[in-house]
Amino acid sequence: MPRPATAPPTEAPARAPRARRQRVQAAATGVAVLKGLSRLGGRASLTRLAAHLGESPAKVHRYLISLLEAGLVAQDAVSQHYYLGAETIQLGIAAMRQADPLRAAEPSLARLREQLEVTCFVAVMGNKGPTIVRFEEPALPVTLNVRVGSVLSLLWSATGRVFLAMTHDGRVEALARAELEAASAEQRRGLDPRDPIGTLRTQVRAAGVATVRDTYLPGVSAVAAPLIDYTGQVRAVLTALGATGGFDPSPQGPIARTVREEAEAVSRSLGYRPQEDAATAP
Amino acid sequence: MPRPATAPPTEAPARAPRARRQRVQAAATGVAVLKGLSRLGGRASLTRLAAHLGESPAKVHRYLISLLEAGLVAQDAVSQHYYLGAETIQLGIAAMRQADPLRAAEPSLARLREQLEVTCFVAVMGNKGPTIVRFEEPALPVTLNVRVGSVLSLLWSATGRVFLAMTHDGRVEALARAELEAASAEQRRGLDPRDPIGTLRTQVRAAGVATVRDTYLPGVSAVAAPLIDYTGQVRAVLTALGATGGFDPSPQGPIARTVREEAEAVSRSLGYRPQEDAATAP
Repeated sequence: MPRPATAPPTEAPARAPRARRQRVQAAATGVAVLKGLSRLGGRASLTRLAAHLGESPAKVHRYLISLLEAGLVAQDAVSQHYYLGAETIQLGIAAMRQADPLRAAEPSLARLREQLEVTCFVAVMGNKGPTIVRFEEPALPVTLNVRVGSVLSLLWSATGRVFLAMTHDGRVEALARAELEAASAEQRRGLDPRDPIGTLRTQVRAAGVATVRDTYLPGVSAVAAPLIDYTGQVRAVLTALGATGGFDPSPQGPIARTVREEAEAVSRSLGYRPQEDAATAP
Repeated sequence: MPRPATAPPTEAPARAPRARRQRVQAAATGVAVLKGLSRLGGRASLTRLAAHLGESPAKVHRYLISLLEAGLVAQDAVSQHYYLGAETIQLGIAAMRQADPLRAAEPSLARLREQLEVTCFVAVMGNKGPTIVRFEEPALPVTLNVRVGSVLSLLWSATGRVFLAMTHDGRVEALARAELEAASAEQRRGLDPRDPIGTLRTQVRAAGVATVRDTYLPGVSAVAAPLIDYTGQVRAVLTALGATGGFDPSPQGPIARTVREEAEAVSRSLGYRPQEDAATAP
């Protein structure tokens, strides 16, 4: 096989690519051993771990020794079981610090803008209420614009209803009660007169999204879904909006489905695991 | 080189051990890339990460691709920087669940019993106060015995003073105030009359250990140090005790030094990092 004359001098000989692939494959095996221990609850015997991975105990043992030396795995002196150790906690803490909902939502904002051709934004819970911190608008002649820093209603905006339904925070509850007291008879008309906040919560939790049509701004409809992190907390809300005539805000419509799917992808990248969360909830 | 007749049929040919070592070495490199990202705050450019590891960017990139595929690392779409991703959060959560102060303290209890020939125990904060949950006694003809389930004083036992000094919990404060109110004039005599709790706290925090001589039980001295986890919280206390005549409870003595070192080793295995904690404290 002729070698190209332009091969850089640091390039390894012809058999190197295969050896390199094998080495990278070995790194993947090390990672698989770590993830296997994690899937088994963070702790297992060599026999159980090897069976889980479908590898020989001798092979898994060699990788465990390497992970033990690196401090990622420890061994129980009594049971001889292997478990995820102090260095893995440090890796996790560093990863948790990187779990930034704004950065994680960037690709979703771009996809919503391009695929659905809608204005979309991310809002966080500020001290005055849900606050827009980042938005994208489609390349259309006429679009709905939103302003970074705008504070939205908890009771009448889709974004606010997601925070209201999915956060367990006395401050959010207090802001919502204040909004309710200050509301006009006209505004209250759309809410359940017996339990306005409780009914909103039940509806949004059941649908997984909040949708509004003309309740916050006449002629504007919106769909919003939560961005949840590894602790199970709503860190931000992803919202798409449009002029009511040309925007389908129904919870089963294609916009709501896409917003929900994008929000779920962001939540997964923030370490959220819905099933696990339900299984380990107290 | 003759092969032994008893070699198992799954054994690889003669050159396998070297190839195996290389593969395990490759797994260690993958781990080093992960830990490098963690040391750089969880996020770095390829150039910075390769320089930190002392490896070529091309080599580090191959391992990053493998870690990206496994979900342990993610790449920022805008800056192209690499950061620790959702699967690393999951590994960390699984490792945190394994951070059990009782299991982690087992080897330390065994060493204290054997090397210092003292009775030693681990206590946790129960709803009635510091509670002994595990103990070891030396193989001597006469030893001090303690009882699992015993609740100790916050103000007059070494164990209690560590909890009092190093936890920030209104419940502990309330229990200590109740003890103080119920105390006899004789018991109060050893405490600072102006600020009994505050002065105890200052002393224990400065020494890193709590030591008592005859204050809780006449003729008994003790030395205690905190077992701190990855969140910086005191999860349990490690205590050594002995008859006052034959046990040196001074904070600079060899028993206090050993107890402090063993407690620090347990805390490290629970993910505690004192420097890092100080550096990142708000």
